[in-house]
Amino acid sequence: MKRIGSYTIQYENNPLIAGFGSVVGKKESEGPLSQWFHKKEIDTKLGCETWEQAESKMQSEAIELALERATMKENDVQVAFGGDLLNQCISTSYSLRGFGIPFLGQYGACSTMVQSLIMAGIMVDCNFADIALAVTSSHFCSAERQYRFPLEYGGQRTPTAQWTVTGSGAAIVAKQGNPICLKHCTIGKVTDMGITDINNMGAAMAPAASDTIKSYLWDTGTLPSDYDLILTGDLGKTGSELLRELLLKENTDISERHNDCGMMIYDIERQDVHSGGSGCGCCASVLCSIILEKMCRHELNNILVIATGALMSPTSNQQGESIPGIAHLIHLQTQ
Amino acid sequence: MKRIGSYTIQYENNPLIAGFGSVVGKKESEGPLSQWFHKKEIDTKLGCETWEQAESKMQSEAIELALERATMKENDVQVAFGGDLLNQCISTSYSLRGFGIPFLGQYGACSTMVQSLIMAGIMVDCNFADIALAVTSSHFCSAERQYRFPLEYGGQRTPTAQWTVTGSGAAIVAKQGNPICLKHCTIGKVTDMGITDINNMGAAMAPAASDTIKSYLWDTGTLPSDYDLILTGDLGKTGSELLRELLLKENTDISERHNDCGMMIYDIERQDVHSGGSGCGCCASVLCSIILEKMCRHELNNILVIATGALMSPTSNQQGESIPGIAHLIHLQTQ
Repeated sequence: MKRIGSYTIQYENNPLIAGFGSVVGKKESEGPLSQWFHKKEIDTKLGCETWEQAESKMQSEAIELALERATMKENDVQVAFGGDLLNQCISTSYSLRGFGIPFLGQYGACSTMVQSLIMAGIMVDCNFADIALAVTSSHFCSAERQYRFPLEYGGQRTPTAQWTVTGSGAAIVAKQGNPICLKHCTIGKVTDMGITDINNMGAAMAPAASDTIKSYLWDTGTLPSDYDLILTGDLGKTGSELLRELLLKENTDISERHNDCGMMIYDIERQDVHSGGSGCGCCASVLCSIILEKMCRHELNNILVIATGALMSPTSNQQGESIPGIAHLIHLQTQ
Repeated sequence: MKRIGSYTIQYENNPLIAGFGSVVGKKESEGPLSQWFHKKEIDTKLGCETWEQAESKMQSEAIELALERATMKENDVQVAFGGDLLNQCISTSYSLRGFGIPFLGQYGACSTMVQSLIMAGIMVDCNFADIALAVTSSHFCSAERQYRFPLEYGGQRTPTAQWTVTGSGAAIVAKQGNPICLKHCTIGKVTDMGITDINNMGAAMAPAASDTIKSYLWDTGTLPSDYDLILTGDLGKTGSELLRELLLKENTDISERHNDCGMMIYDIERQDVHSGGSGCGCCASVLCSIILEKMCRHELNNILVIATGALMSPTSNQQGESIPGIAHLIHLQTQ
C-alpha cells in the first residue's frame, strides 16, 4: 500500500473482488435494474416480525450470496467491515452475529459500502487477511420510521426528496477471484456547506463528492475521460446536477462519464421517487449487481465509485444543525 | 503487518503513540483519577446550547490536546478514525467537521476507542499515513436521553446498572513519538449469550471480552502473567467478575493483572455509580490519561487493553432482541 499525493492510497498487491451478492425489495425489483439483482424479496418483512429484522436478514442473504458465488465459506473470511443507517447500526450487528467473522463496524451513512470496501481492500493488501468482507443495507420502512414519519402518516414528499432503497449488497475481497482489481482509494473529509433541509440530502452531499473526486484526479493525474464510468452512490437527480456544476466550476467535466446509483435503480418518473434512490443499500445493491457483473464481462473496465453520506441525525437536525456530508472513492479496474 | 494465529495482527513497523489527550466532566473530575485528566469541564454543556454539541466540543478539545502534546497541527494528520454512542455518531461527525482530516467513522459501541486505535495503527504500519488519529467520547446526559429515560424522570437504577462517563479521549499514532508502541491487535467477533437486560451491559459484554482475550493469548502463546496490566474498557464490577469467572473455566487466571476502566474512573461506593462507569468515553479517557502517562514514565510497560461494546439499540431491545457484545484488543509495549 502506498500513498499518492495528499489523499489517495494505491493498493499494491492486487486485491480482487472474489464474489458479490445483491438482494432488493419489491419496488427495486420493478425498476430498470431488475434482471441484474441476485435475489428479490417481495415480502417487505422477509417473513420476520419487524422491518429491522428483515433488513438484517437481507444483509445475511447478501453475504451468503457473495460467499456462494466466491465458492467460499464464512470460516474462510478473516475480517468483515459493514454498517447501516439504523441507530447503533443494528442491521449489521445482528446480521454479523450469525457469522463467526471478526467484525469492525463502520459508520459512513450512505457512504458505508465504499468505506467498507476500502477497508476490506486495505486488510487484504497489507496481508492481514486473505479474505475480507464488505456489506451494508438499507430498508425503506425501517429508515422512514427512524428518520422521518410513521409510514401510516402518509406525509407529502418534496421534489428533492429521495426514496430509501430496500436493498443490500456484499462483496468479498481476496487475493484471488474475479478479474476486478481494487487499484486506488481516496478517503473523504467531512464537508459542510450549511444545508439544513433533510429533504435535500443530495445537495448536502454533492460538495463532499466534488471534493473527493477533485482530490483523486489531482493525486493520480488522471482525467474523467480516462474512466468508463464515474458512479456516485445516491446523490439523486438534484445532487447529481449540483455535483456536475461544482466540478465544472473547477474545469472538470464529468457529464460524459457520470451516473448515479440513485438514478439508475428506479424509473424516476414512472416509479414516483422524486429525486431518486438513497440509503446505504442503494450504492451497495447497484454496485454488487449490474456494475460488478458488467466488469466481470469486461463491458466496464475502469471505473470510479464514489459513495456519499449525510452525517446528520434527526436530533442534530431538530437542534438546527446543518448537514455535513462525506464521500469516499474507490477505483476499480479489470485485469 | 503480519497475521499471527487465527485472529491476531502483529504490527511490524513500530507505530507509536505520539500524543494523547483526555477531557472529562464534573463527576469524573471528582473521582480517583482526577489528577490524571488533561482537562476538566465543570459545566455539563461546555457553554453550548445542547448536550450533543457539548459532547462534540469535548471531542474537539481532546483532539486539540493530543495534537498539542504531540507538537503537531491538524494538517499533519492524514486520517482519523472515531465514533460515539449517539444515533448516527453525530458527536464525531460534528467534531471532525472542524478539522480538515480525511475521516472514516467507526461504530463499535463502547469498544470504539480500541477499534479506532487498531485502525490508526494499521494505517501507519502500512505506510498509508505517517500520522493517524483515534478519538471517541460519551456524555452522561446525551446518552441517558437517547438510551434510557429523560433525566427529569429520575428513575431508580438497578445494582448492575452502569453510569455513562462524560469524557473523551484522543490518541495520535505516528512513526515517531512517545516510547509507547502498538505491538499486536485482535479483532473480536459478535458474541451473543442471550442477555436481554439493558441494565446489565457488563454481563452482555463479558463473553465477548473472554473470547477475544483467549484468542489473543492463544495466537501469541503468552500468559496473563506476561503483562503488567490487562485492562478492560467498561465491564464494571458485575461484568468484570463474570469475565474472570469465564476465563477461569478455561484455566486462564487474569485476576492478578486485571482492572477495568469503569471501576477505576469512579469511587464506586462514594460516588453511587452502582456497577461502575461505561460509555465510549470511559475507556478513552482512562487510557488517554493515567494509563498512557504511566507508560511514558515506564511505570507500566506491557499492557493489553480490551474495549467491549454492546451492539444493541433501544429499538432492538424493545423488539425483544438479546444484546450482542463485541471486544477488540490492543497490545501496547514501551520501548
